[in-house]
Amino acid sequence: MPDYLVPVEDLQAVLFDVLHAPAQLAELPAHADTDEALMRQMLDEMGKFVSGQIAPLNRIGDEVGAQWKDGAVTMAPGFRDAYQAFWQGGWAAVSAAPEDGGQGLPAVLDAALYESLSAANHGWTMAPGLLHGAYECLKHHGSDALKAEYLEKIATGEWLATMCLTEPHAGSDLGLASTKAVPQADGSYLISGTKIFISGGEHDLTDNIVHLVLAREPGAPAGPKGLSLFLVPKFYADGSRSAVACERIEEKMGLHGSPTCVMRFDEARGWIVGAPGKGLNAMFVMMNAARLHVALQGVGLLSAAWQKADAYAHERKQMRAPGAKDTSLLIDHPAMQRTLATQRAWLDAGRVLAYQTAIELDVAKHHPDAERRAQAERWCALTTPVLKSACTHQAFHGGSDCLQVFGGHGYVSEWGIEQHVRDARVAMIYEGTNEIQAIDLLVRKVLADGGTGLAALLDRVRAEAGEGPLGREAVRCADALQALTAQIVQASQGDATLPYWVADDYLRAAAIALMAWAGARIEASPAAARPGARAALDALAHWVLPEFDMRQTIIQRRLTPAQAA
Amino acid sequence: MPDYLVPVEDLQAVLFDVLHAPAQLAELPAHADTDEALMRQMLDEMGKFVSGQIAPLNRIGDEVGAQWKDGAVTMAPGFRDAYQAFWQGGWAAVSAAPEDGGQGLPAVLDAALYESLSAANHGWTMAPGLLHGAYECLKHHGSDALKAEYLEKIATGEWLATMCLTEPHAGSDLGLASTKAVPQADGSYLISGTKIFISGGEHDLTDNIVHLVLAREPGAPAGPKGLSLFLVPKFYADGSRSAVACERIEEKMGLHGSPTCVMRFDEARGWIVGAPGKGLNAMFVMMNAARLHVALQGVGLLSAAWQKADAYAHERKQMRAPGAKDTSLLIDHPAMQRTLATQRAWLDAGRVLAYQTAIELDVAKHHPDAERRAQAERWCALTTPVLKSACTHQAFHGGSDCLQVFGGHGYVSEWGIEQHVRDARVAMIYEGTNEIQAIDLLVRKVLADGGTGLAALLDRVRAEAGEGPLGREAVRCADALQALTAQIVQASQGDATLPYWVADDYLRAAAIALMAWAGARIEASPAAARPGARAALDALAHWVLPEFDMRQTIIQRRLTPAQAA
Repeated sequence: MPDYLVPVEDLQAVLFDVLHAPAQLAELPAHADTDEALMRQMLDEMGKFVSGQIAPLNRIGDEVGAQWKDGAVTMAPGFRDAYQAFWQGGWAAVSAAPEDGGQGLPAVLDAALYESLSAANHGWTMAPGLLHGAYECLKHHGSDALKAEYLEKIATGEWLATMCLTEPHAGSDLGLASTKAVPQADGSYLISGTKIFISGGEHDLTDNIVHLVLAREPGAPAGPKGLSLFLVPKFYADGSRSAVACERIEEKMGLHGSPTCVMRFDEARGWIVGAPGKGLNAMFVMMNAARLHVALQGVGLLSAAWQKADAYAHERKQMRAPGAKDTSLLIDHPAMQRTLATQRAWLDAGRVLAYQTAIELDVAKHHPDAERRAQAERWCALTTPVLKSACTHQAFHGGSDCLQVFGGHGYVSEWGIEQHVRDARVAMIYEGTNEIQAIDLLVRKVLADGGTGLAALLDRVRAEAGEGPLGREAVRCADALQALTAQIVQASQGDATLPYWVADDYLRAAAIALMAWAGARIEASPAAARPGARAALDALAHWVLPEFDMRQTIIQRRLTPAQAA
Repeated sequence: MPDYLVPVEDLQAVLFDVLHAPAQLAELPAHADTDEALMRQMLDEMGKFVSGQIAPLNRIGDEVGAQWKDGAVTMAPGFRDAYQAFWQGGWAAVSAAPEDGGQGLPAVLDAALYESLSAANHGWTMAPGLLHGAYECLKHHGSDALKAEYLEKIATGEWLATMCLTEPHAGSDLGLASTKAVPQADGSYLISGTKIFISGGEHDLTDNIVHLVLAREPGAPAGPKGLSLFLVPKFYADGSRSAVACERIEEKMGLHGSPTCVMRFDEARGWIVGAPGKGLNAMFVMMNAARLHVALQGVGLLSAAWQKADAYAHERKQMRAPGAKDTSLLIDHPAMQRTLATQRAWLDAGRVLAYQTAIELDVAKHHPDAERRAQAERWCALTTPVLKSACTHQAFHGGSDCLQVFGGHGYVSEWGIEQHVRDARVAMIYEGTNEIQAIDLLVRKVLADGGTGLAALLDRVRAEAGEGPLGREAVRCADALQALTAQIVQASQGDATLPYWVADDYLRAAAIALMAWAGARIEASPAAARPGARAALDALAHWVLPEFDMRQTIIQRRLTPAQAA
């Protein structure tokens, strides 16, 4: 089966026909000169690079994988050359600031790039996937000395970075982390401890690797407030190697192209990033950026699985379809049409929502109007956990539906579809499990202000829904979600654990409402006339949206337990 | 993490407390002497054997897997010894007739055995998994000469069997099969062709392997009616080897312990089983038995995943749960309780439904009352596709939820949970994809008699639902399913393709209704007082049953498209 081909025209249709991205960005002085022609050209070039140089390495990344030997990690054949071409071509620096060596392009172009890279080769893409977060973290929290030495190298991707958070007994619960940082007379620290699940902790893609490490000074308080962030490079400026070692890499369900490392810090010299005790704050800058990237991985992985399944369904003969006269193709069977149109619906709507959120990131940073900036911040805060959870859920479960199109051929490795499903599974876990996203959405975001931020977002959903059938569904879902939120706000006053019981269903309800909005945006645009788009919109209405009412029912049963059973 | 431990008391609770299996079987002269004491003893022994000898080989089956070299297949270390102990201990012959060398026990004990084996080691269990179907096929369709030579060997499991159906361009569509069978003067046939996806086509577990092969005589009509069934052994009675070769084994997503073989028949001598042109009929005897076995695999795989996740959630520390004062365990978090209780609900209810169906298999065969036999046949015909689809769906998607409990540790191989998810995926495909089960249920079973058979089954569901909350839900779902069925019957008269569009949702609705019945049976029994059972019943009502209404909505939107959107 051919490698992934970036569907450049689909991405362009979202940006230009559905979202009118150039007009939105024209309001931002920082991006006023990013016109449609420039964006189209960048996406065309991006498509060629990703389809031509990254996608062909996906299979070997799974089959050969990253190999550990005596502390060194050798990436799969071709990975290093592809990475060198990537950063030297400026692809690592798409949205970094020009003064740091970046291209200064809007975040939404970086979003299109990362969706495409993840679709083409999830394993390879893990390496540069953390760069932008590390860049933002260092730019906002690093000392001048650290920035002078590291910022441009990270902005351009010449050096890669890691996030060293998790420890064997501190996963989602970072407050338990016990890695130590002992201050030295010269202002540096000696870091000691073991970190696990470190993607790209060691590899041969770049000449240096910059670790951002969560650790605790002696005497610092227990729990999250005692954690500070430190920078420890693999190599110091004088060429000497730091006392950081990769002890082993994990055997995993998938993502074999990306080494998941156990890293030991053995009095490794490093420097603090940001204020003492504010390590989690500094890290969260990285994590929020990373969560949208993970959502884009979900969009990309579903795109890759859908592309394979759609091609297969159009070429594989299958018994006579209902109403047909002779042997048919798989695609002639209603069950297959349903699967493909439904997954296409999630793909199209997920992409619209993710790209708009990427645009809002820039609006929040650069818009001259403070109110519009605040609106954009609210949009990102509320949609990011929804996107992260819903898109990664769909990449795995919907990717599995795409595998099903192949029948028995889907289960064997030959066609490559099962790799997407294995690779996709991790995205439901990392950067905050999907259950944590649900709590983030409902408890930390929606309930924190009594639902007023959400109400404002839903006003916008209603205002932009248009008059089509999906628009009416979006309005219906928005109204129902707002009423449901008010009920939860009230019920939570008497029962503080209640939100934790309904958070998962609440996130799903919000996801369906936002997908309806995204579908309404497509419906009202010329993109609705593109091949397959209408069937996907119908599938969204018919097979996806009814989940909203189910979630509502489930939540209401919890709010008024007397109704239950 | 410890290997799977067969939850013998849970199985016994279903058989004795919920289903009163001894009383049901007492109505059958063939099983009148199978009393509770005998069944308990058999299950106790079974648990010891499976937990002690089969479960410990699960990991090595995945890691080392079956190995192909020069046409020979070596199974993972320990597999052959375990298999020899298995058949010599009489475990392969639990439900075969005593006159054929079997133990003549009720099918439901075989069901408990296969659920447990699949949970303990899905890969290993693939080998004996086809035995019973091959035995039934040969017993009912084989000539006296074939039976004399093969029936006892297969009944006892001394020799293993295969089903050679699929060809490279004939998967679900067996009518396209082109393997040739040329009749010889002595009444034998020479078989030539290539079959793929042959589980256990070659291995070193037994001294002989008996292939049942679908092929076409020269001049036979095209399509399914031209297919006959043939028996071709690996070795003939004189010790010579047949012209059957294993060309290679597939690389797969999981199930590495079971070799999935490409088998080449090169004028291999064989004999016809059953009448010419009736190959699919003979094969369907095997396939129906196999479908219930696959459903039991689903129950078993979910049980294995749930057992691991439940244990992990009770030992892993995690941040402070809502309302807690200090660091908590994973299980203290609502999202984890919900996941585990919901999967336990599917597990408990699926087991009750599957075991009752296994009892009905014997009732259909042995009950003195013809009407009761007909009722039992109807039960099996209608519930088997539902069970096959719903239990395998849950093993994969619910197994993935169990993996999620582990966070990042679930994605790495160390804890063994990701193997269950990879292994489980295939069960949604083989023995008829889950989409084919849905068509089987709605088109071939429910609509074939205008819904009267289903109505009779729903009468029984209502009669057995009891008065508890889940019983009322079961009645509600049964009523709604019956009304929905009547609508589909009517709408299909004007639109023959309509059932194919709603079949998947219809099967899910039927599955939820039957799970409600199963939950009601548990609720009304002493089993409801067992640890964790009440939480699972609550989860069934709260998080599982609302899917029924969603499916109903989706189907009705299709029936009256004007309502859509």
